Amino acid sequence: MSFLKNVWYQAGWGDELEATPLLARTIAGIPLVLFRTEGGEVAALLDRCPHRFAPLSRGRKHAGGIACGYHGLAFNAAGACIHNPHGPVSRALSVSAYPCLERHDMIWLWLGDSERADPALIPDLSFIDRTPVTAKSHGYLATAADYRLGIDNIMDLSHVDYLHPNTLGGGALTKAKATVTQDGGTVQVAWRIDNHLAPPAFAEHFADPGAPADVWSIVKWHAPGVMVLEAGAAPMGRPRSEGVNSFNLHVMTPETARTTHYFFANTRTFKLDDGAYNQGLQAFLCTIFSGDDKPMLEAQQQRMGEHEFWDLKPALLSIDAGAVAVRRKLEDLIAKEKSHARVA
Amino acid sequence: MSFLKNVWYQAGWGDELEATPLLARTIAGIPLVLFRTEGGEVAALLDRCPHRFAPLSRGRKHAGGIACGYHGLAFNAAGACIHNPHGPVSRALSVSAYPCLERHDMIWLWLGDSERADPALIPDLSFIDRTPVTAKSHGYLATAADYRLGIDNIMDLSHVDYLHPNTLGGGALTKAKATVTQDGGTVQVAWRIDNHLAPPAFAEHFADPGAPADVWSIVKWHAPGVMVLEAGAAPMGRPRSEGVNSFNLHVMTPETARTTHYFFANTRTFKLDDGAYNQGLQAFLCTIFSGDDKPMLEAQQQRMGEHEFWDLKPALLSIDAGAVAVRRKLEDLIAKEKSHARVA
Amino acid sequence: MSFLKNVWYQAGWGDELEATPLLARTIAGIPLVLFRTEGGEVAALLDRCPHRFAPLSRGRKHAGGIACGYHGLAFNAAGACIHNPHGPVSRALSVSAYPCLERHDMIWLWLGDSERADPALIPDLSFIDRTPVTAKSHGYLATAADYRLGIDNIMDLSHVDYLHPNTLGGGALTKAKATVTQDGGTVQVAWRIDNHLAPPAFAEHFADPGAPADVWSIVKWHAPGVMVLEAGAAPMGRPRSEGVNSFNLHVMTPETARTTHYFFANTRTFKLDDGAYNQGLQAFLCTIFSGDDKPMLEAQQQRMGEHEFWDLKPALLSIDAGAVAVRRKLEDLIAKEKSHARVA
Repeated sequence: MSFLKNVWYQAGWGDELEATPLLARTIAGIPLVLFRTEGGEVAALLDRCPHRFAPLSRGRKHAGGIACGYHGLAFNAAGACIHNPHGPVSRALSVSAYPCLERHDMIWLWLGDSERADPALIPDLSFIDRTPVTAKSHGYLATAADYRLGIDNIMDLSHVDYLHPNTLGGGALTKAKATVTQDGGTVQVAWRIDNHLAPPAFAEHFADPGAPADVWSIVKWHAPGVMVLEAGAAPMGRPRSEGVNSFNLHVMTPETARTTHYFFANTRTFKLDDGAYNQGLQAFLCTIFSGDDKPMLEAQQQRMGEHEFWDLKPALLSIDAGAVAVRRKLEDLIAKEKSHARVA
Repeated sequence: MSFLKNVWYQAGWGDELEATPLLARTIAGIPLVLFRTEGGEVAALLDRCPHRFAPLSRGRKHAGGIACGYHGLAFNAAGACIHNPHGPVSRALSVSAYPCLERHDMIWLWLGDSERADPALIPDLSFIDRTPVTAKSHGYLATAADYRLGIDNIMDLSHVDYLHPNTLGGGALTKAKATVTQDGGTVQVAWRIDNHLAPPAFAEHFADPGAPADVWSIVKWHAPGVMVLEAGAAPMGRPRSEGVNSFNLHVMTPETARTTHYFFANTRTFKLDDGAYNQGLQAFLCTIFSGDDKPMLEAQQQRMGEHEFWDLKPALLSIDAGAVAVRRKLEDLIAKEKSHARVA
Repeated sequence: MSFLKNVWYQAGWGDELEATPLLARTIAGIPLVLFRTEGGEVAALLDRCPHRFAPLSRGRKHAGGIACGYHGLAFNAAGACIHNPHGPVSRALSVSAYPCLERHDMIWLWLGDSERADPALIPDLSFIDRTPVTAKSHGYLATAADYRLGIDNIMDLSHVDYLHPNTLGGGALTKAKATVTQDGGTVQVAWRIDNHLAPPAFAEHFADPGAPADVWSIVKWHAPGVMVLEAGAAPMGRPRSEGVNSFNLHVMTPETARTTHYFFANTRTFKLDDGAYNQGLQAFLCTIFSGDDKPMLEAQQQRMGEHEFWDLKPALLSIDAGAVAVRRKLEDLIAKEKSHARVA
C-alpha cells in the first residue's frame, strides 16, 4: 500500500503537546516525534536517533530543540545536531525533519518534498478559528482500520440510520437524494431533505419547532482524508441563514496500512456561549464515534483481513458514489506521485 | 493445511443462540454468523456483508432473516438479499449460505457441496435426546491448538493417569489393554479392566461397593472430530446392563489451522433425576477440561509451533494406535476430497 | 540471525530452581527445561517430549529425572528414557540433553558439541563466591530486545549521564576518557576520572569524604554476553586497595533473535555485613534497570524493527568503541563456527 507524500496530513491537535511535550506518532508508516520549539512553533522529526536508534520521543526538551534520552545528542527543529556531549557536531548526526505547522488548532505535517510544502494547500477550516471555545470541541480515536474505510464511513452518511439508529439516525438520510459533485480536487456529497421535521436539537431554535423544515447535510472531502460536514436546518422555504447550522470535521490520517488516527471536531452556529451544552454535545459525539463507528470500522477491517477493498469485489450501491469517487481520486493522486517519482 | 468440506461439523450448541442471537463463529477458517429464523430453524451465513464487508453478526434480526448493522441490507437464511433500503434488491447482493441444522442439542454445519449435505450422515447421538435434563450437561472451550491434538487426547485415554492423576486417573487405563477397531469410517478404542475396583462414583450403586468389578471405557470417533466416550462399571462377571454407565461427547471442530472449538457433553444412566449431582458433575468436568486438558493441548501446540505433527517425527507408543488410525483416516478423507475436486 | 553454540550461556540463577523445580527457558531459540537431579546437580533437556511434543516443564520430578505430565514417560539428566508406563524403554524415546553446570550461583549451559563443553571456559566470576550473602544480590529481567543492544548498553557507560541522570549519572563518565583494550578474546573499557569527588556511597568511607578522589569504572566483556563491571574510588593518589570497590555482573543471554534474558548481580568490598544496606541497594538497582534500561532497550528494538543494526547505518561516536569491538568479535566468532561447521 502506498501513501500520498506531497500532501498535508493532520498529525495531531495542537493541545496534545501540553500533556505530552514530546509526542510519538507514526504517520503513514513513519515514526515521528512532534514537539514545540522554544518559540512555540510545532516541529516534527523522525523519531529515531541516528546514533543508536533510540526514539527521540523518550528524550527531553533541550535548548533549541530536543535531546535523546539515551546518550544526550540534541537536535533542532530542522533535524540538525546542535549538541554532542561526546565529540564534535557533524552533519552525519542529523535526523530527518518534516515540514510542520499549526493551523485551525491542528498540527499539519508534510511527508514529501519540503520545497513543495505550501501552507496554502491546507484546506480552509477557518470556521474552527471563528468559533468561540464554548461552541467547539475536538477529539481523537486510534482506530485499527484502513483510513479509507474511515473516509467511506463519512462520505456515505446513510449509515447513521443503521449504525446510530437511536441517536444521529432516524431514516431521513436514507430517503434523501444525495448529489455528488467534484471540484478542484475535492469531492462533495450533499443530502437535501425538504419538508421534514428538523431534528429536535435544531428545531428548538425555530419559532414553531413542530413546523416542516428544510434539512441538509453536506460533506466535502479534501485529500488525503480531511472531511468537513455541514449539517443544519431552516424553517421550510426560508434561507439557510435563518436556520441553524453545525460544522463537523472528520479527519482520517493513516498511521499504518491498517490503522488510522481519527481526529474529529464539532462547531455550531447556535448556543455559542453555552459551555455546558458544548460539553454535553462533545460527550454525546465521543460516545457515538467510539461506541459505534470505531468498532464497526475495526470489525470491517478484520473481515477484510489482508485483502485490498477492490479485490474482495464489493457489491456497490448508489449510496457509495461519494466514497467511490474519493477512492478513485486517491488512486489517481498516488499513481501521479509514483510516475513523477519515476521521472525525477 | 486442508479441512474436510463434505462433512458435518458441530458449529455450536443450540442454546448458545439464546444469549447471542447472532453468533459469530469461524469454522475451518470461514467466518460465519449463526442465527435462528423466525420459524426457529438454525441458519449459517458467511459473516461478511457483500456490500462493504461488515460482519453481519454485528447486525440485528430482520423480518425473514438478519440485517447488516452498517447500511441495513437484509438477508434470509438462504443468503438471498431480502431488503435493500438504498435501491433494488439484486442477485449481486447475495451472501454465501451453508446447510445448517439442529440435532441432539447441537448446531451442525456443512461447508461443502450443499446437495451432498445429507442429515443422515450426522452420527447418531440420540443418547443426548433420551437423557433427562437433570442427567446431562454440555460446555464449550475455545482452545488454541490444532483440532487433531484434541482428537489425539481423547483417542488415547491413558493420559488421564498422568494429566488427571487425582481426579479421573489412577493408573487403571494404563494397565488396561486397549483394542482398536475400525468400522464404516469410524475408529473405536475399547479399554477393558477386569477384576478391579470400580471408581467410587460408579461403585456406590452396587450392592457391595467394595467388591471387584468389570470397568470399561470405549471411545468411538466419527469424522471429522466427533467422539463418544462410554465409561461404566458392573459387578464382576455380571452383564453391563446390571451396571452403571455414562456417555460423554467430545467434539473437536477446527476454528483455524491451530485453534479449535472444543464442545463437550456428559450424560449418565444413573441418578437421572438428581439435578444437584448433575450440576456438581458438570462443574467437576469443566474444571478438569479447562484446567488440565486445554492448557496441555495449548502447550503442546506451542512447542510444535508451525510444524506439522509428522514432520517432527513423534516417537509413537502402543497407546497411540487409535489416535494414529484417526489421523490416517482424516488424511485419506482429505486426499479423496482433493482428488474429487480435481476431477470435478 | 545466528547464535554462538560452542560457548557457555548463563541460563539462570541456581536459586530459580527453588520456586520452579522444572524451569522452562528458551535459550538462543531452543526451548529447554532446567531442573536439579536427586543429587542436586543442574540439568537441561529439550523441553519437548519426543512422544507427542508436550513441554516436559509441565511434568514433575521422577526418580532419577523428570516425567512428562501428559503420558508419563520419564527421562534422566542425560536425556535417556528411564520409564515408559506403556511399553519397553527404547533409544527412540530419548530427548536432547545439554551440558549444564552450576558455578558462581549461576546455571551455565552449552548448546554446541558436548565434547567441547569445558568448564574451564567459564569466565572467572569467583568474586561472587567470595562475597558474603549480606553484600551481594542478583536479579533477572526478561527484555524484549536483541541481546547485543543489552551488551552495547553496558559497554558504553556514558549512557548513565542521560538515561539515569539523577541516580547513577551526573556527567563524570561523559567527561572521562575511556580506554578500550582487547585481550584473549575479551574486550575491556576503562574509564578513569582523576581528581574528582567520589560518589557519596563511596566517599563516606574515606577519612575526608569531601577530598578529591580517583574514581574508576572498568567493564570487561566475555563472549557471548558476560560483562563484569568494577566501579570504585580511592582517595586521590592512593592505591586502589585503600579505596572501596564494587563488582557488578551484567549478563545478556539471547532468548530469541529479539528477546533477551538479562541477568545481573551486585557485590561490594565495603559494608560487607550490612544486610539492610544490601537490600536497599538491590531494590535501588532493580528500579533503575527495570525502569530505565529495559524500557529504553525495548524502545530501541521497536524502532529498529526487523532491521539489523548495521543495515540502519548508525552514526557511531567515540563512546561506541567498546560496544563496536564486541560486535565485531561476536561476528568473527560466529563466522568461525560456521566455517568449522562446513569443514566438519
